Amino acid sequence: MAANQNVKTSTTSSSIQQSQNILPNIFIHGPPKFSIFLQPNPSHNFHILNPSCLPPLHQFIATNPHHASSIHAILCTTLFPVNAEVLDLLPSLRLVCASTAGINHIDLAECKRRGIHVTDAGNTFSEDVADMAVGLLIDVSRKISVADSFLRRKLQHASWDFPLGSKLTGKKIGVVGMGRIGSEVATRLEAFSCKISYNSRNKKSSISYPFYSSVLELATNTNVLILCCALNDETRHIVNKQVMLALGKGGIIVNVGRGGLIDEKELLRCLIEGEIGGAGLDVFENEPHVPKELFSLDNVVLSPHAAVLTSESFNGISKVVEENLKAFFSNKPLITPVI
Amino acid sequence: MAANQNVKTSTTSSSIQQSQNILPNIFIHGPPKFSIFLQPNPSHNFHILNPSCLPPLHQFIATNPHHASSIHAILCTTLFPVNAEVLDLLPSLRLVCASTAGINHIDLAECKRRGIHVTDAGNTFSEDVADMAVGLLIDVSRKISVADSFLRRKLQHASWDFPLGSKLTGKKIGVVGMGRIGSEVATRLEAFSCKISYNSRNKKSSISYPFYSSVLELATNTNVLILCCALNDETRHIVNKQVMLALGKGGIIVNVGRGGLIDEKELLRCLIEGEIGGAGLDVFENEPHVPKELFSLDNVVLSPHAAVLTSESFNGISKVVEENLKAFFSNKPLITPVI
Repeated sequence: MAANQNVKTSTTSSSIQQSQNILPNIFIHGPPKFSIFLQPNPSHNFHILNPSCLPPLHQFIATNPHHASSIHAILCTTLFPVNAEVLDLLPSLRLVCASTAGINHIDLAECKRRGIHVTDAGNTFSEDVADMAVGLLIDVSRKISVADSFLRRKLQHASWDFPLGSKLTGKKIGVVGMGRIGSEVATRLEAFSCKISYNSRNKKSSISYPFYSSVLELATNTNVLILCCALNDETRHIVNKQVMLALGKGGIIVNVGRGGLIDEKELLRCLIEGEIGGAGLDVFENEPHVPKELFSLDNVVLSPHAAVLTSESFNGISKVVEENLKAFFSNKPLITPVI
Repeated sequence: MAANQNVKTSTTSSSIQQSQNILPNIFIHGPPKFSIFLQPNPSHNFHILNPSCLPPLHQFIATNPHHASSIHAILCTTLFPVNAEVLDLLPSLRLVCASTAGINHIDLAECKRRGIHVTDAGNTFSEDVADMAVGLLIDVSRKISVADSFLRRKLQHASWDFPLGSKLTGKKIGVVGMGRIGSEVATRLEAFSCKISYNSRNKKSSISYPFYSSVLELATNTNVLILCCALNDETRHIVNKQVMLALGKGGIIVNVGRGGLIDEKELLRCLIEGEIGGAGLDVFENEPHVPKELFSLDNVVLSPHAAVLTSESFNGISKVVEENLKAFFSNKPLITPVI
């Protein structure tokens, strides 16, 4: 259905293009470094209006009001919402290309209502995010970052004095969200002889791991929760106080999904009071803010929303974005359509 | 053959025990914390002479010369050599129980010459060491410890600004030493779709991964070297300048073996000058010393010889040591004999 809509809409875009004999304009809606990492190659199908990713959209439209109607697509990333207010600025917008797998920063209902297509990162980041999830889990279990910091600050030398960690091999792992990322995480941790269980909206017939219909039940039966699901109204604070208490004092939470999946205030309390064993956090509830209470804790590993930050993934997403743009402006089906 | 020797020798020990109607004494030869972690349960087969692991052996014998001949076994660990000088202090010694997998701190030839048996940790630590190797590799590739440190020092907030890491999935991994630990590492990294090759003294018919007869050739054909072999005269500085240059600027070295496997001076130079991409180091050439040049580098992760430091492994090694002692002083075959 998306492809059909796409053909219809992109025909319209193509008509605009042909009638005006100019290329459709693309606006990059993100932070300054976004354009360095994510720069589609020059194309005869479209034109990047702000290749240096500046100024911000509101400012750009305010100073270049004639461009409001020339922008047919935007590239966007987290922390740069695509909501009704942004959409109101762009009356000719037909395509939103997200550079991310999570798209909770995009108002999908509003896009749908306006006939605007949305693409995401597809499967581009799944392997990197799964690698990061396993890395954070080993790091927390085995105290790698805290030991590295102790050594560098000369609070420790290489000998017996360091506190004992917790073994990963054989642990019971609860994956929350058994999609592309969750499956990659499970595959990796099976090779550590871990016992995998999962929770997701529905039991998946293609997945043989034990399924729990609630995260509370999953936490009760596992040593580790790894959060890989999307953030939406159903999953916000899916890990609350009760879930953390069920996971217990030795339990570890790894979050490579979105910060809002966890009740962050309760997480802080549980970490400080030892109600859970530790946490590996790549995402936070109010990014780019990271709660300062975390900085003094030895049972957490903190990562700056970096699960997809590899050169390989950035080459991959550049290609996916470029192919989506080319497809859209050539009246072909989108590569990674959401709507 | 070891078991036969054991029966012969432990019969002698047992005779001493019976004739004197006292339990054979065990001395704990290690740092103060050693005895906290590694304390065999009380037994009617033997008696721990220094349960608090103090004073050091030389001092103990100097102040208690009558005990020199009463010590029939010692428990020992790295950094506490068991060489001819130590053996000379203990004329009745019949068993050296190492709490480690690597036993380069024990003069095996000298033990053999004197008819002294040696046991090691057997397979107790293989899983934990393999977990640590993978953890260090992900940490270096994905810059986890450096990011954690940047966040805590407020040099970074959770957003796009952090430098890109390197993808782990699919990388070519060279395992140096395909024993118990190397096999566990390979199994784990296969689940990350990594391509495994290995070097060891001899090609192993039971292992299907490609074999390279030299570490230089292995480094030339891989992105990552993981050192899991024992340190001995053949393997000292097995990773030298030439090997590091062959591994190349994007290459990563993980060492969970012994520090002496790498020419540490050359490693420092290669890391500082970017001749290799990075390193995850759990061991160092002159422990407990860690070269201070490493402390300012962002492309290394440093760990205080902590690959076996989990409560699970310590319970495991306590049991192995206790079972070896019980077996030895009951004239039964040793559990994890080396000689």
